[in-house]
Amino acid sequence: MTAITVLGTGSWGTALANVLLDNGHDVLMWGKTEQTVNELTTDQTNSQYLPGILLNPRMRATTALHEAAAFSDIVIMAVPTKAVREVCRKLNDAVAGRKVFIHVSKGIEPKTFKRISEMIEEEIKPEFFGGVGVLSGPSHAEEVAQKQPTTVVVASCSETIRTMAQDLFMCDYFRVYTNDDLVGVEIGGALKNIIALAVGITDGLGYGDNAKAALMTRGLAEITRLGTKMGADPLTFLGLAGIGDLIVTCTSVHSRNWKCGNMLGRGLSLNDALNEMGMVVEGVRTTEAAYEMARTYHVEMPITEALYGVLFNDEPLENNVKLLMNREKTNE
Amino acid sequence: MTAITVLGTGSWGTALANVLLDNGHDVLMWGKTEQTVNELTTDQTNSQYLPGILLNPRMRATTALHEAAAFSDIVIMAVPTKAVREVCRKLNDAVAGRKVFIHVSKGIEPKTFKRISEMIEEEIKPEFFGGVGVLSGPSHAEEVAQKQPTTVVVASCSETIRTMAQDLFMCDYFRVYTNDDLVGVEIGGALKNIIALAVGITDGLGYGDNAKAALMTRGLAEITRLGTKMGADPLTFLGLAGIGDLIVTCTSVHSRNWKCGNMLGRGLSLNDALNEMGMVVEGVRTTEAAYEMARTYHVEMPITEALYGVLFNDEPLENNVKLLMNREKTNE
Repeated sequence: MTAITVLGTGSWGTALANVLLDNGHDVLMWGKTEQTVNELTTDQTNSQYLPGILLNPRMRATTALHEAAAFSDIVIMAVPTKAVREVCRKLNDAVAGRKVFIHVSKGIEPKTFKRISEMIEEEIKPEFFGGVGVLSGPSHAEEVAQKQPTTVVVASCSETIRTMAQDLFMCDYFRVYTNDDLVGVEIGGALKNIIALAVGITDGLGYGDNAKAALMTRGLAEITRLGTKMGADPLTFLGLAGIGDLIVTCTSVHSRNWKCGNMLGRGLSLNDALNEMGMVVEGVRTTEAAYEMARTYHVEMPITEALYGVLFNDEPLENNVKLLMNREKTNE
Repeated sequence: MTAITVLGTGSWGTALANVLLDNGHDVLMWGKTEQTVNELTTDQTNSQYLPGILLNPRMRATTALHEAAAFSDIVIMAVPTKAVREVCRKLNDAVAGRKVFIHVSKGIEPKTFKRISEMIEEEIKPEFFGGVGVLSGPSHAEEVAQKQPTTVVVASCSETIRTMAQDLFMCDYFRVYTNDDLVGVEIGGALKNIIALAVGITDGLGYGDNAKAALMTRGLAEITRLGTKMGADPLTFLGLAGIGDLIVTCTSVHSRNWKCGNMLGRGLSLNDALNEMGMVVEGVRTTEAAYEMARTYHVEMPITEALYGVLFNDEPLENNVKLLMNREKTNE
């Protein structure tokens, strides 16, 4: 039985806190929204993000960051990519001792091209930083909260950290593999959201399953090209954090990025689609980051480029999709 | 404009003949069923396999194999794996000159472990054999016949043959890549049907999208292990004939193998499911072949083994699925 802090009361943070409680650990969640925190603590529900699901009876949350920080030496970081630096800075003022960080978010910072583990290491004061890992893979929060069988991967440069995280999370409905390729697991998780947006668009436009599979396959190829350039092991993209997560994000009804793309394909503007979603759609910001990375590192990423044009330059959807289909005759 | 013979009047042979006709080539199809052949020639429809689709007005078919054989020097072979040897033997009696063969089927022969190109080369007399290639990838026949955008791969050891096939088939809705890994493309296409059966079963049992993505990812890993042992390039399994075809077969409503698995998951016996399908379900026979190959070559294939037990030894479904989820803690 271990004490664990979970930062972020969205669907994924809540579902993971629930797994840890099911495994007998002590968990304190932290969130900014008073109503959600109260609901988690008194009713063991999170009606905004996991409607209809009754969580573990020992679920507790707080809005006081210093309380959450004092609760344990292990911090599960489940906040949107955009909020990572800010939460880390606040944490510096709230903590006393050294913490191990496991983040579970999927994004890359535009301009700096930093992965989330890099942002955490940059922001947390050295005297409080006890190492970092990532948990990723094909795992819709809704299904994990329903205890549907799920398989994920934990990556860290530290064998101690990845084995610890595996031991904490593993149970009969939540199977955890370890992987030492931190870069590959983080990049796979982030970039697959770009492909999910693109697939959502073509689905929204009425394209069929053949086109979808081709787009996912070519998408995996360009993710792998960029990831390898950033130092990832190409084999990681064949695993759960690569193709596994890509499949679930592009083909599941639960996927936010696919849903957002689908609305674009059916004619909504980006702003209207994001408003209708009411949740963070990480893929939009990741498309911006990957587009800049591809240009900087001279990596061919035709799907990312076409999507960037649609999202940020008002280029017409149909046109960009046709461009992708009608490239020159080529070798695979 | 080239003359081309298509053997087999199933959905895939018909859809491919239609692509070739759309590209301006002369095509003669051959089939055994008088009714289908007449319907193709007089109405340009194939109501059994492609209901509701009006094909190219120049569509023609015959039941006379010698007529089809005399029609061209290029033979597209679109018959079930089980029928390949028999059709080749009959062809030996019907042909006069040398032919190039492009096959489009997805299977492996149990006991001999032969790929389809190997069976063709074994059966066709040397004086009639002008080389062989395969066309594969994520391509439901129904969508190709509807001219939905589709991307496939043509593989052959001969650069002349793969470039020729690319030129013959490529058009604005049918994009053809070339690949020199004949072994990998044939094995990828055949073995993905095993995973589609397994995914159909778990879908039928009510498992969620997380489990499905995990099964597909682990499935791709075991296909890659066996394929590499048989001489394939592992990168081929990252491409259209590997992950691309796996995605479309496991997630599309059109997939025969998924449908058959789904019926098993919902409680039907194998015989009842096959009867209800009324079409060839290549994955059943391929499971037998792959199971034997895995044992012979000492390759770890837990999904194939579990499926073999369900299909051929009446082992209970739920039990075998649980075995797959609850293996030891491990590295990815």
